[in-house]
Amino acid sequence: MDNSDPIEKLISMLGKLPGLGPRSARRATLFLLTKKDLILRPLYMAIKNVLENVSLCETCGNACTDQVCKICLDPKRDKNLICVVEDVSDLWAIERTRSFKGVFHVLGGTLSAIESIGPEEINIIELQRRVLAENGEKELILALNATLEGQTTSHYIADLFKDTNIKVTSLAKGVPIGGELDYLDEGTISAALTARKDF
Amino acid sequence: MDNSDPIEKLISMLGKLPGLGPRSARRATLFLLTKKDLILRPLYMAIKNVLENVSLCETCGNACTDQVCKICLDPKRDKNLICVVEDVSDLWAIERTRSFKGVFHVLGGTLSAIESIGPEEINIIELQRRVLAENGEKELILALNATLEGQTTSHYIADLFKDTNIKVTSLAKGVPIGGELDYLDEGTISAALTARKDF
Repeated sequence: MDNSDPIEKLISMLGKLPGLGPRSARRATLFLLTKKDLILRPLYMAIKNVLENVSLCETCGNACTDQVCKICLDPKRDKNLICVVEDVSDLWAIERTRSFKGVFHVLGGTLSAIESIGPEEINIIELQRRVLAENGEKELILALNATLEGQTTSHYIADLFKDTNIKVTSLAKGVPIGGELDYLDEGTISAALTARKDF
Repeated sequence: MDNSDPIEKLISMLGKLPGLGPRSARRATLFLLTKKDLILRPLYMAIKNVLENVSLCETCGNACTDQVCKICLDPKRDKNLICVVEDVSDLWAIERTRSFKGVFHVLGGTLSAIESIGPEEINIIELQRRVLAENGEKELILALNATLEGQTTSHYIADLFKDTNIKVTSLAKGVPIGGELDYLDEGTISAALTARKDF
């Protein structure tokens, strides 16, 4: 193995990406070395551009190139319908459906007693300030992950707005589209049974 | 999805790495966005360093930070024992064994009639020049992949040195260490049978 530092350093940095282990990072590095002008330099420019131009939206916490993101600036978006998500990746996942016409609020995590993450560590205070600052009939859609931490955070947020006129909803739970009952966990089936609807 | 260019561009560039598809590139980008100072900036610096400092060794074609690589410069290495490999990754694979004490010659590919890659396109001419330029009893170990192209290239190189006093050898073919016969292909078993040795 060539121990010259720059190559080893690049391997170790690429190995930190999710989806790449030490072995595939080595492969990726080698690939980059042989495609210096075709891939390595454009990748370098892309990272440079992100480092210099991308920050978090002041309003919702989405990753964007301006102070306020395109979603928050879009006049067609319903500012009274706020979807609360854990991470920017969840925001992207919802945007990919092209079916949501409201705006977002990215918490940047969930409450966690074990990791001692309280409401101050994630953007819950900002959410409260943002929602209560404006008038209008607002709805908060809690689209947090269906994990223990996600659900704890949902309950905490719902409690915060209990005595206000803010409507708090959450994503429906049930059988995923294309899902086969045989492969689903008991929790999902129970939830789908409880939330059954007229056919 | 936020269509602001820098992020999409980074996703598309990361998606070109072997081992990362569009989905995992998106995940990796998001991971980088949330770890700007911890990962994204160091990765940027690592790439910058490689772009500025890494090139191919003039002698053997290995990736290195100087004109000539550490292996070629190492006085303990036997310069008369030259291992011919397809790519730098193969060189690294052999170096990881820590059992080879000679030097390398990286071809940078194999002959291929289909992709019209001839001896001029890969470093075969340089190999010939390098080997014939110096005196001494030399051995060329052909460590090309056991693929059709690898073997064609091996035969071509062996032919080149047929009428010289250069000894040309190739890696042994047989059952891999830890290999179970039941899972091996017929070609490997045949090769292992043909090359059987006294126990």
